[in-house]
Amino acid sequence: MSFDVLQDKIRKMKNPTVAGLDARIEYVPEHIRKAAFAEYGVGRKGAAEAIYQFNVGLIDALCDIVPAVKPQSAYYENLGWQGMEMLERTIAYAKSKELFVIADIKRGDIGSTASAYAEGWLSGTKIEGEVFPAFDADCVTLNGYMGSDSINPFLEAAKAQDKCVFVLVKTSNPSSGELQDLIAGDRQIYQAMGDLNQRIAKDTVGKYGYTIAGAVTGATYPSDIRDLRKRLEHTFFLVPGYGAQGGTSEDVQHAFDQYGHGAIVNSSRGIMCAWQKTGGDGHDFAQAARNAAIAMRDDLKQFVTIV
Amino acid sequence: MSFDVLQDKIRKMKNPTVAGLDARIEYVPEHIRKAAFAEYGVGRKGAAEAIYQFNVGLIDALCDIVPAVKPQSAYYENLGWQGMEMLERTIAYAKSKELFVIADIKRGDIGSTASAYAEGWLSGTKIEGEVFPAFDADCVTLNGYMGSDSINPFLEAAKAQDKCVFVLVKTSNPSSGELQDLIAGDRQIYQAMGDLNQRIAKDTVGKYGYTIAGAVTGATYPSDIRDLRKRLEHTFFLVPGYGAQGGTSEDVQHAFDQYGHGAIVNSSRGIMCAWQKTGGDGHDFAQAARNAAIAMRDDLKQFVTIV
Repeated sequence: MSFDVLQDKIRKMKNPTVAGLDARIEYVPEHIRKAAFAEYGVGRKGAAEAIYQFNVGLIDALCDIVPAVKPQSAYYENLGWQGMEMLERTIAYAKSKELFVIADIKRGDIGSTASAYAEGWLSGTKIEGEVFPAFDADCVTLNGYMGSDSINPFLEAAKAQDKCVFVLVKTSNPSSGELQDLIAGDRQIYQAMGDLNQRIAKDTVGKYGYTIAGAVTGATYPSDIRDLRKRLEHTFFLVPGYGAQGGTSEDVQHAFDQYGHGAIVNSSRGIMCAWQKTGGDGHDFAQAARNAAIAMRDDLKQFVTIV
Repeated sequence: MSFDVLQDKIRKMKNPTVAGLDARIEYVPEHIRKAAFAEYGVGRKGAAEAIYQFNVGLIDALCDIVPAVKPQSAYYENLGWQGMEMLERTIAYAKSKELFVIADIKRGDIGSTASAYAEGWLSGTKIEGEVFPAFDADCVTLNGYMGSDSINPFLEAAKAQDKCVFVLVKTSNPSSGELQDLIAGDRQIYQAMGDLNQRIAKDTVGKYGYTIAGAVTGATYPSDIRDLRKRLEHTFFLVPGYGAQGGTSEDVQHAFDQYGHGAIVNSSRGIMCAWQKTGGDGHDFAQAARNAAIAMRDDLKQFVTIV
């Protein structure tokens, strides 16, 4: 099962980091922007091409340091179909460099619609009897507010292809508690969500002990992560909120099991925008991202030992 | 504020119906599919073109009967970027026919990411100081599991452009209760979601008494709708689940206020796939959809009188 694939990559690199590929056009160094706008015009196509060049540079610089990348769909959708075309190319390029690709889409819908989403992002769509892949990620993030109906079609698609999913449990943003922290019976809502998510995937436990239904657990709520690690022993965690949002390596250590397994920590702006802090003009963006990824790996190593 | 725009359209047509544009390639009549595959090949591009022709036929046949259409993003994403390009064209075509367009995307993310989604779907994206619209719908559906952070950026974008949103409150699918019906204090979770959603938009009440943050309330749970109508007097409702999912006109009547205002009922397969029940070969798909939309309007009229 597929968190086995990801955990193997993490162990090989001794680095439980996923790098976000969430570029706004403002994050792209000026020389790349200028060249793309000159060739494709100032507009959605030019912006998409600039971001693609930026993504390729980041992927080349990171692919032997980090095991996974996480493009956030919003930053492609905001360029319309040209952004989505570029997202397809970005995912394909990352996979060609043997990176594990988590498409951060947070989808969730009724069963028939969830099946269509699962086709688009994981398994491909059948047309006249033949399957055509679309975005074709290794893993997606999901929102389970609608219950197991909205998750199961993704699990079916994932099972068939050795892929996996992460379902939102306790998110990293300031208002996450408004709904997630409400107490129902003897559990908070995010605990109920986590319990449900582990239960519906219980027959998919892989060699490291994790099901194919992982959970998103924000670094900004470290005590919740510690509790969830004990509560959900068969759930792999995706931990956003390290760096720009305020989470530290000390905070995220609680997401890991005693072997340093079972979690991956995301950093987006901290790696992607590292060039903005070097004092340079952006020609060093790839090296700056690589240095930031190495620094993050070494920072995590202080608290997490991967065996 | 924007539910005023929608309510005005509903009153003019005396029809509180939104038609789903959720075509899988199998729903498209054979003569359209064959022509598109012959011209563009069997694949994502051919399928997208076939569905576009189908959508245009539906829009032409429905635009003087229904006030609104609701494309479901999943059925475009599963054709990759070619599907998204076709979604842009579908939305633009529907707007050119003065239909109100609800993009059913159920997005929800941390604030900075929600802003990017809001750009993509409502307000457009700034590139070198100029705003470029992307999918440019009139309204979107959202998932508020992450709390007010994840909704507010959409409200800001909607306010600036006389647009609006629907947030999932009580969904129509069988498993919706797994999370939404849990009891926290004196409220069920979907009630807490509804309360939160009404509160964060409370300064946006329009001439009909509704804020710009509507709620999705499934027709398949009529007693919950009745309670929500009383509880959320300033919230406009989008009611899925009529027809194929089992909801009836008697069930959905409770979504409306005493003037027959404050709600719109969705039908997707019931209208879009009506041609499959006429015994024909699909050449009559547009007329069949029109007839089904008229039948639905008349069915709703039995229980809902719009003043």
